[in-house]
Amino acid sequence: MATKTAYPFRVEPQEVDFSLRITLVALGGNILNIAGIDAHTKGFGVDALNKDNFSWVLSRIAFEFDYRPEEYVKYEIATWISDYGRMLSTRNFELTDQTGVCFGRVVSQWCMLDLSKRTAVDLRAVAESHNDAIVECPSPAEKPRKVPAPDAEPVLTHKVAYSDIDFNRHVNTMRYIEMMLDVLPIERFAEERPLRLDINFLKEARYGQTLSVALEERGSQTLVEIRSDAGAALCRGAFEWR
Amino acid sequence: MATKTAYPFRVEPQEVDFSLRITLVALGGNILNIAGIDAHTKGFGVDALNKDNFSWVLSRIAFEFDYRPEEYVKYEIATWISDYGRMLSTRNFELTDQTGVCFGRVVSQWCMLDLSKRTAVDLRAVAESHNDAIVECPSPAEKPRKVPAPDAEPVLTHKVAYSDIDFNRHVNTMRYIEMMLDVLPIERFAEERPLRLDINFLKEARYGQTLSVALEERGSQTLVEIRSDAGAALCRGAFEWR
Repeated sequence: MATKTAYPFRVEPQEVDFSLRITLVALGGNILNIAGIDAHTKGFGVDALNKDNFSWVLSRIAFEFDYRPEEYVKYEIATWISDYGRMLSTRNFELTDQTGVCFGRVVSQWCMLDLSKRTAVDLRAVAESHNDAIVECPSPAEKPRKVPAPDAEPVLTHKVAYSDIDFNRHVNTMRYIEMMLDVLPIERFAEERPLRLDINFLKEARYGQTLSVALEERGSQTLVEIRSDAGAALCRGAFEWR
Repeated sequence: MATKTAYPFRVEPQEVDFSLRITLVALGGNILNIAGIDAHTKGFGVDALNKDNFSWVLSRIAFEFDYRPEEYVKYEIATWISDYGRMLSTRNFELTDQTGVCFGRVVSQWCMLDLSKRTAVDLRAVAESHNDAIVECPSPAEKPRKVPAPDAEPVLTHKVAYSDIDFNRHVNTMRYIEMMLDVLPIERFAEERPLRLDINFLKEARYGQTLSVALEERGSQTLVEIRSDAGAALCRGAFEWR
């Protein structure tokens, strides 16, 4: 039976913002890196999949952080796969402080892409290695929600440059999140309030495209959307401070 | 007698660009993090200086890379202080591959800032801890050169946002380098040629400013300058592919 795998971390000086707490982008980056390492260790990482010209693609993710830890504080990220269907595999994360208190819960949903056909792979095709990795422990938070489109004009534009793209020449996930954070009022990062953030990745952005970012306050949520030149939605996020 | 201190690294998947080699920004980030850790270990890190309201500020840096290592390759960064004068302390770095071949050489010059007076501190004031840290080994490359101003109009503008700034609310060093890389032709990153990059940090950029970036090809060099709203030079870089 598989069990959760935990990785130790410490908040490094280069990871903090002006509030001297770790940024959401640094936390998110560490979480996604752990996903890659854990999948690699268990034999279904991007490197193994690439032999078949398959790759994992992040479809949706939900983050819940009760607070962001301060500089030099140690914490742990545990990860496990709880279930998978025909199209989506669910990978979970729990962030725990040194006293054992859980301060962060993350649920991510991934599909497997056939890079040559550009279509999703039926996950039953990879059931063997995947079944062994399933941990009988439910997701620590509600699964990522569908994020509605903000009804608003863009407030920021950005032309995709070399530093924004990954090995695939697509805008990397953390850069999407940075663009979303950059349209929020900066005071949001000075306060310490529990946050739930749902993100839907809809379409990839490529080098040279000019992206725009729109946001709308709707009820208790701030909805953010990154759009392509043509106005198509590429990525949506819903921030809910509690 | 102090000796060089070496830190082990491996090129992580999230650090590579589309050429599947580590980016200059990831290398530069690791180098600066090592500087922080090494200074901290030896008792004159930013955390110790902050008690006197002093801080280290990077003034100039020169990078020489023969190549950029590929994904999953292990390497080592060694660092040492070779000398200091009244105003500047010289910290050096050598990057070595697994066979012991040096593929990168970095020379950085730092001044110490009194944060309350916003003036440079005479380094003789901190001679005691510093003297013990000096390693009798010269810099592995020519010291950072003064970079001339490009004679050109800006090709890129960027409004400084939350994700660009550090704990000090100034644009962080690696973001400056990203902005410089983003105005170069992207093909430069597909080829594998030895590079020397000299950077001069002149003035800090703050949240909300609109920066512009200009570049000029001059002889064997590409000169890049980041300017403030008011047109003042904030940071200059000279790229020389060999």
